[in-house]
Amino acid sequence: MDFVEQHFTVSYQYKTFFTVNVFDPSNKTLKTALGESIQEKKLLFVVDNGVAQAHPQIVAGIHDYASANQLNGLVPDIIVVPGGEQVKNSMESVDRILQAVNRYGVDRHSFIVAIGGGAVLDMAGYASTIAHRGIRHLRLPTTVLSQNDSGIGVKNSLNYFDKKNFLGTFSPPFAVINDARFLETLDDRNWRAGIAEAIKVALIKDRDFFYWIERVASSLNAREPEVMNELIRRCAVLHLKHIAGGDPFEMGSSRPLDFGHWSAHKLEQLTNFEVLHGEAVAMGIALDTMYSALDGRIDRSDADRVINLLIKLGFAITHPSMAIENADSPLVAGLQEFREHLGGRLTIMLLDAIGRGVEVHAIDATILQNAYRTLEQKTALA
Amino acid sequence: MDFVEQHFTVSYQYKTFFTVNVFDPSNKTLKTALGESIQEKKLLFVVDNGVAQAHPQIVAGIHDYASANQLNGLVPDIIVVPGGEQVKNSMESVDRILQAVNRYGVDRHSFIVAIGGGAVLDMAGYASTIAHRGIRHLRLPTTVLSQNDSGIGVKNSLNYFDKKNFLGTFSPPFAVINDARFLETLDDRNWRAGIAEAIKVALIKDRDFFYWIERVASSLNAREPEVMNELIRRCAVLHLKHIAGGDPFEMGSSRPLDFGHWSAHKLEQLTNFEVLHGEAVAMGIALDTMYSALDGRIDRSDADRVINLLIKLGFAITHPSMAIENADSPLVAGLQEFREHLGGRLTIMLLDAIGRGVEVHAIDATILQNAYRTLEQKTALA
Repeated sequence: MDFVEQHFTVSYQYKTFFTVNVFDPSNKTLKTALGESIQEKKLLFVVDNGVAQAHPQIVAGIHDYASANQLNGLVPDIIVVPGGEQVKNSMESVDRILQAVNRYGVDRHSFIVAIGGGAVLDMAGYASTIAHRGIRHLRLPTTVLSQNDSGIGVKNSLNYFDKKNFLGTFSPPFAVINDARFLETLDDRNWRAGIAEAIKVALIKDRDFFYWIERVASSLNAREPEVMNELIRRCAVLHLKHIAGGDPFEMGSSRPLDFGHWSAHKLEQLTNFEVLHGEAVAMGIALDTMYSALDGRIDRSDADRVINLLIKLGFAITHPSMAIENADSPLVAGLQEFREHLGGRLTIMLLDAIGRGVEVHAIDATILQNAYRTLEQKTALA
Repeated sequence: MDFVEQHFTVSYQYKTFFTVNVFDPSNKTLKTALGESIQEKKLLFVVDNGVAQAHPQIVAGIHDYASANQLNGLVPDIIVVPGGEQVKNSMESVDRILQAVNRYGVDRHSFIVAIGGGAVLDMAGYASTIAHRGIRHLRLPTTVLSQNDSGIGVKNSLNYFDKKNFLGTFSPPFAVINDARFLETLDDRNWRAGIAEAIKVALIKDRDFFYWIERVASSLNAREPEVMNELIRRCAVLHLKHIAGGDPFEMGSSRPLDFGHWSAHKLEQLTNFEVLHGEAVAMGIALDTMYSALDGRIDRSDADRVINLLIKLGFAITHPSMAIENADSPLVAGLQEFREHLGGRLTIMLLDAIGRGVEVHAIDATILQNAYRTLEQKTALA
């Protein structure tokens, strides 16, 4: 057979900064993150409306920061977009960004800087990656969830055909800045929701981190910022290591970080995203942990320990839309959709121990049903 | 400053196959290109309407090939899309592909196989890359231009805001198959147009290849298939080497392969794509070659030699829409648009010699105008 073989590697590098008050004019983090000769480059800001509401001074603050730091390429039109999953359900916000890219001549060496929760970062990252085959994008995640998980990773997405993340690409950010100040204005639901991703990564990768979360649970409930900052940093480092050490652009069938996620994705869709991603992940963790126990992989006492921590932190572990009556229940269809989204063989992460994940390629519907019923009993008792 | 650094590399690999009669059931090229355990995977075909017209048996041929080779995952609905640049001017064809991906459960380990000219491959590649964060795509380029240049590379695109390739990503194909049989049914314009990219790469990289094209010009005009196959293979190998050895995803400001392209992109847009890409590139080569001579970089006799070859092959070297009256002429605006599309500094490739390109960062409007006038005189004499 007659062929020519092509082979090359592409190297990716980015920093995740930790700071407080990123738009204080004397704070050099953003300027440093943007890199050299930034004076000549355009900067297009996209701000989550939820953030703009909680921080009414942010738009003026961006202008002041740019003046004080000679960021002369600031595009004066700062784009405020709806927050939450709805921003991913249409092309509207993507199109506003593309129009600004066109109008202001934002080129591939310029920056799109997105400030917001995971949904806004997903949407803005998608717009950045498809414009001019990829404009540099810088992320300022403003929620626990995005600071410790989605915002520091390499993915972006939109929903399409009512399917979460049906559209998207792999496209590493130019840099990430986690500003602890944004966490202070989160409501309790969003403060709590992001903790689920830390529990997830602890359960599959780092036993000691799980025990630490158990010990500090009361401090997290009391919203002690230092404890949350430590949780975010430890979780972020585990995620970054996992991405770099694994299959960053997920060319294989496995997605080891997605423990508890197959049912979470489906539950979000079934509830029209009224359940937050982190809340859904907490329920997904509870379900797959109990499944791991009923399937004989972990001790029942360990499963109870995980579920008790979720309950102590204030998470619901069941939801009416999750109810599994039989193999045709809506949640079960989520298994097939998860497989389709990842491609290849069905691959689901379960637990072998606290701190150690294991991949399986089949899920038993009866065990799944029993696992969910056990959670319902716990909910009734709680 | 407090930060965590992320670093990883991603490795890409793909083969470009050369064959004749790819859908002959006994031809194993496609089956080999699809790789292992292909029986279980979905195959979604997208066919250029121009190809379907010229090869009315192609849809039946795909079905027969799939049956004979146990490609059981063939999606029965073969998508025929308009050929030529128009297919890139709206989301319509992209959306038809996305709908099929959704309806037939085409996952990330399945394949979208696109058959057609460069525009159809660009569009189908874009659809493949944004669905599920990237479905494997296999390209069967059917024109000289796509077989020796765009079809074997790592880019895809759509036009937006009337700007060529405003949307797109870098996304290497899973494999490419060049089938010489498709070239036989090309009209003379499309047969000729693709030769421009070979002249381009020869001029900037390979003097001997340029001299060879001069020697075989009459055979190319006589449409001798063996000569065209050799031209395509040599050109493809030069392009592949350049991509692998350089900056595959164009993170810098330079695009050394784009000799003659800044004005070509603009001319295509100004003529509403009535001028084919290769035809526009031939005019762009003529312009930048004459500019190189008037700027004292190459001998005038070498410039004449290049232009005589273009004329001998039947290329026009001027077009009314290219006329440069002053620094505000439409073509000159193309310089700025080219810079915006690439990002960073203006970087234009000129010639230092036949076979050797050189990058410059400024273009003199007076020299440009004189270069174009010289071409007009040549056109008047030809």
